[in-house]
Amino acid sequence: MSQPPTQVSRLAELQSTSRDALYELLGSTPLATIALIRDDHPVVFPTGFARLGDELVIHGSTGSPWLRALAAGAPAAVSVTTLDAVMLARSAFESSFRYRSAVVFGTFERIPDADKEPYLEKLTDSFVPGRVAELRASSRKELAATLALRMAITDSNWSLKVSDGWPEDPDEDIASGVWGGVVPMSLVYGEPERAPDCDASIPVPESALRLAGRRLG
Amino acid sequence: MSQPPTQVSRLAELQSTSRDALYELLGSTPLATIALIRDDHPVVFPTGFARLGDELVIHGSTGSPWLRALAAGAPAAVSVTTLDAVMLARSAFESSFRYRSAVVFGTFERIPDADKEPYLEKLTDSFVPGRVAELRASSRKELAATLALRMAITDSNWSLKVSDGWPEDPDEDIASGVWGGVVPMSLVYGEPERAPDCDASIPVPESALRLAGRRLG
Repeated sequence: MSQPPTQVSRLAELQSTSRDALYELLGSTPLATIALIRDDHPVVFPTGFARLGDELVIHGSTGSPWLRALAAGAPAAVSVTTLDAVMLARSAFESSFRYRSAVVFGTFERIPDADKEPYLEKLTDSFVPGRVAELRASSRKELAATLALRMAITDSNWSLKVSDGWPEDPDEDIASGVWGGVVPMSLVYGEPERAPDCDASIPVPESALRLAGRRLG
Repeated sequence: MSQPPTQVSRLAELQSTSRDALYELLGSTPLATIALIRDDHPVVFPTGFARLGDELVIHGSTGSPWLRALAAGAPAAVSVTTLDAVMLARSAFESSFRYRSAVVFGTFERIPDADKEPYLEKLTDSFVPGRVAELRASSRKELAATLALRMAITDSNWSLKVSDGWPEDPDEDIASGVWGGVVPMSLVYGEPERAPDCDASIPVPESALRLAGRRLG
């Protein structure tokens, strides 16, 4: 299938072809933003995702028009980005962010019913490690109401751009006495908060305790 | 101009029509993901943005093919999302995230040269409040090399979905003794890090000190 070019067009020196670096990024946020075309317009929707093996996996309601369009083979562009720092150069012009950004192009396919349960369990454990062991199994009705889709990560359908350096100021700006550096940014989990309908005698589970204070990205 | 529907199709009860809530979200992250169509394929690129007044503003190199396509009037969908918490329900099926997600549809227009400098200064101060006062003015050459674009936020070109509640488990799951609640997530700034080419005698500026420890979203 034809696909958009995976060559980075601006700052090509920031392009990475490392699958390890790609997978590190895909593990550093549960958020993907998926673009597709609807009635000749670009549309976009954010969703939780996980990388499982060499596949991107998403899920949702069988009633979701977005997921149904993707399941029907709509070409998609999946964007995953983390901002790792704001970069303070000695000029506004050279100021920027440290970031990692990937786009995966392709089509999703429906995960067959026979495979759905293990995929969904891995997805749940990707969002909250260890949570599946604390929960009852999904019912047949719940599984039937869930659409799960996967897209292969091949050798040629993704692009990764990594900005992890320092400001690149010209000598006269470096000599000007203005400070240059970065202020790191990260996604951090806070303390678990009990739902109003959760009895106070029920202890906070291991899965939630492990997340608290964890730093992603 | 025709545009995709701004009615939320799934979980319509989570749709918000509050412009204040929209602007709060747009102020809670500097990252937007912009979808457009290129050679009949959906493509997507992440970029820093700011809301200035009732406009979305982005900028970059005059050599960027993405920005040039947008400046030429390519229809765009701008997605801005924050994950505010991971939601631990008593079943995998009801588990989810707290999130806020907006899409703004429309076309960008080039900011005229006469207005570019104040726009770019506000953009810089949006990423790092107070930074402009610490920097030299941009040179004419730098301004000429920068393309700045804006998109109006109208009464009808955006959609906002806000999930800020608690798990909605059925009674039998609530009674099962499994813990339910949320673990908050936020984007946090760390301590400033000096660039290798920045003399140790130069003090860390107020702008960087103010960011440190700040929590976004």
